[in-house]
Amino acid sequence: MKGKQLTGMIDRLEPINQTVRNIASGTIAPRHLVQFCLDRISRHDVVLRAWVRLDEHSALAEADRLEQMALRGKILGPLHGIPIGVKDIIDVAGMPTVAGSPRRAHHIAARDAPLVSQLRRAGAIILGKTVTTQFAGFDPPPTRNPWNLGHTPGGSSSGSAAAVAAQMCQAAIGTQTGGSIVRPASYCGVAGLKPTYQAIDTSGVVPLSRTLDHPGPIARHVSDLAILFQVLKQRSQRQRSAPAIDATPLLRIVEDFFMDEAAANVISALEPALARLHAAIRTDNPFRLPRSFQTLHRMHRRIMAAEAAQVHRDEFESAAGQFAPRITELIKEGLEMPAVEFAAALEHRALFRQAMGQQLDAATVLVMPATNTAAPPELTTTGDARFQSPWSYAGLPVVSIPAGKDPQGMPCSLQFVGAAGQDERVLAAAAWSENQLALDWQRPEPKAKCTN
Amino acid sequence: MKGKQLTGMIDRLEPINQTVRNIASGTIAPRHLVQFCLDRISRHDVVLRAWVRLDEHSALAEADRLEQMALRGKILGPLHGIPIGVKDIIDVAGMPTVAGSPRRAHHIAARDAPLVSQLRRAGAIILGKTVTTQFAGFDPPPTRNPWNLGHTPGGSSSGSAAAVAAQMCQAAIGTQTGGSIVRPASYCGVAGLKPTYQAIDTSGVVPLSRTLDHPGPIARHVSDLAILFQVLKQRSQRQRSAPAIDATPLLRIVEDFFMDEAAANVISALEPALARLHAAIRTDNPFRLPRSFQTLHRMHRRIMAAEAAQVHRDEFESAAGQFAPRITELIKEGLEMPAVEFAAALEHRALFRQAMGQQLDAATVLVMPATNTAAPPELTTTGDARFQSPWSYAGLPVVSIPAGKDPQGMPCSLQFVGAAGQDERVLAAAAWSENQLALDWQRPEPKAKCTN
Repeated sequence: MKGKQLTGMIDRLEPINQTVRNIASGTIAPRHLVQFCLDRISRHDVVLRAWVRLDEHSALAEADRLEQMALRGKILGPLHGIPIGVKDIIDVAGMPTVAGSPRRAHHIAARDAPLVSQLRRAGAIILGKTVTTQFAGFDPPPTRNPWNLGHTPGGSSSGSAAAVAAQMCQAAIGTQTGGSIVRPASYCGVAGLKPTYQAIDTSGVVPLSRTLDHPGPIARHVSDLAILFQVLKQRSQRQRSAPAIDATPLLRIVEDFFMDEAAANVISALEPALARLHAAIRTDNPFRLPRSFQTLHRMHRRIMAAEAAQVHRDEFESAAGQFAPRITELIKEGLEMPAVEFAAALEHRALFRQAMGQQLDAATVLVMPATNTAAPPELTTTGDARFQSPWSYAGLPVVSIPAGKDPQGMPCSLQFVGAAGQDERVLAAAAWSENQLALDWQRPEPKAKCTN
Repeated sequence: MKGKQLTGMIDRLEPINQTVRNIASGTIAPRHLVQFCLDRISRHDVVLRAWVRLDEHSALAEADRLEQMALRGKILGPLHGIPIGVKDIIDVAGMPTVAGSPRRAHHIAARDAPLVSQLRRAGAIILGKTVTTQFAGFDPPPTRNPWNLGHTPGGSSSGSAAAVAAQMCQAAIGTQTGGSIVRPASYCGVAGLKPTYQAIDTSGVVPLSRTLDHPGPIARHVSDLAILFQVLKQRSQRQRSAPAIDATPLLRIVEDFFMDEAAANVISALEPALARLHAAIRTDNPFRLPRSFQTLHRMHRRIMAAEAAQVHRDEFESAAGQFAPRITELIKEGLEMPAVEFAAALEHRALFRQAMGQQLDAATVLVMPATNTAAPPELTTTGDARFQSPWSYAGLPVVSIPAGKDPQGMPCSLQFVGAAGQDERVLAAAAWSENQLALDWQRPEPKAKCTN
């Protein structure tokens, strides 16, 4: 076929916009791109364990169909031919949505979740399902960190972050209720977007906590996240006009809590990056968190527990033994909680959101470390959500980007947080920052880096 | 003074826009308007019991100040010189906010609630505080229905509705959590607006149920409600452009539940009105309620109970005996409720709102009876909220207008319901309908109508 004659083998993944241009011009065949990802998976996933299920046959058939379209000059959308992984709590038609639970092994999804349909309509190739912690909770999954196999990749979107970091797909979809996109993305040295609450439809996603769950993309470049966000956001959000973006963003550091509680080696890893962003940061004017931040983590836990208990109540009553220890603890907490405690937490959240809304104008983007430590050197935890959960709680848009390495060579990220609905502005600020940092890391090769 | 020479005594209240024009032109002095209201109050409130507290001195002083401004050609806003009553769960600086509770007799408000400040900035004269049921619950207050003193005026905004119906003020502010604006307005033969959830700030309002509470105006004409809404709505809402309004609205009847459960004499009272609105009603296409409506009333009660319990928890634990019987029952229900039950109700509400949002386009306004019966002939109840609570639950804008009388001469209303944020469109539809109906009722004179 003409297309294949034009295309050579692929030895690395480019940013999505470049890849789609290459597919459109016939320089790359989607089949070779898929094959590149499948080769990476077959080489590394035995140890990395980022994937629950692949659909090689469909992915290759779809690649051929998209190649034929491209040869006829037809490009479906900004993801034409791009291989993507989907966290295994999100329905993909014909595949089980196991959600890390043995009881769900035969829950075959009849339909794609709307967000998956949106990906497909934009030309994406769904490669398969990526590993999640059980029900997107805190029980560590088998996945390892591609930078060092003895370290956790973070969670709950463990497989999505590890797969993107190991170049097994060009992007992957995760979800965040506490810190489940930003933390694994940061631990694995890739970029993540947790959008404004409700910017992306959660239908067809196994809920953990309905008022805290946020689907969002993980990718290697902020430009990739921006493309994915355009594709994924709900129609109602799409009607919003994109904000006017200044060349240099207006950044404010959050010293309270985030600079104070970050580990010393995270601060030293990030200091050179913060220095490089100096031109944008209003150093004279750090952002002060509302006083109600003090009880935020406790209130976040309450909401998550009450809502998780409501979701899993019936299953839990009939088969509690099938639940992993940490999700069990969360559900039990929720089942024992009185409604007034939950109501108090919801009120606290409404007031915290209001206070943040008053203090954070649309033009400002906050910057702070994305995690309090780099990926812990153990596989018995998915790490600490305390730096990410405030923004899940507030429903504000967050983008994290790799920004340094700790002395052990593990990546550390900065996170950028904006006002509700200002996802594009936060993406623009993160893209500007990524460009300033101009990191030129070797990509991790899982086998070579194992120190355990 | 020149102004007073120009103004004659007032024998009835005109619509607000006409009154403000008369004040601006010097045809009416605000003092005479206030005096007219105070006279009505002193004549009728001994039996009607619509007022908790008046501030005659301040009201008259403010009237004089506003008159002087008008004489200098300065008009503060669309309520310049208009006497208004405020439900006694809303803070008015310097007055106690008793909320119907003996324990709060000395809770003097330090500041006006923001909605009261907005009224004052638009030129309103705050006449005093109107009777509320205890904590805006269901315990009957001393207020009577001006159309017949043996009938309830409804609640919980009992005093606000009765005072407007008896021409003791030109408008009054109420709040609705179940049916507390639309029901008393309907029972008392006046118009009411329960706006979109969060369209009006609830700061400085004693909460009953934080996610169900809606402040809103009660007045005699839809044009009055529209003016009050413009003044009262939050700044964030004001940035919304008003929808394009057609001359004839697009109305759809809700037969499910509302036409089915309305008492026969309500249906007969409203049939002539519905016939007069025929040109606007898509009779071929009644609106079908989402299936989840079936459990709505139970879920509404759950949310109200859990949130009321959270608000009153501390006071209740220290002095349960000070609470009236029905609010006690509600708080107890909430205190005994597990968080998962509350979470299930919140989920039900989110899904009901979503379903209504999908089925009700921005251009359509629903029409249905506002109450299932006219005001019951007793003072031991505030009536039945089942026709109003669905729209408090859904957070959708509602306007009710008097539309007929039952065989005992008690008024019955229609209510108009629109999509979230379409308050102006609902007001326009109700104004068009009010105009079609052209009711020319004698206003009630409380003493003359008592049949008990």
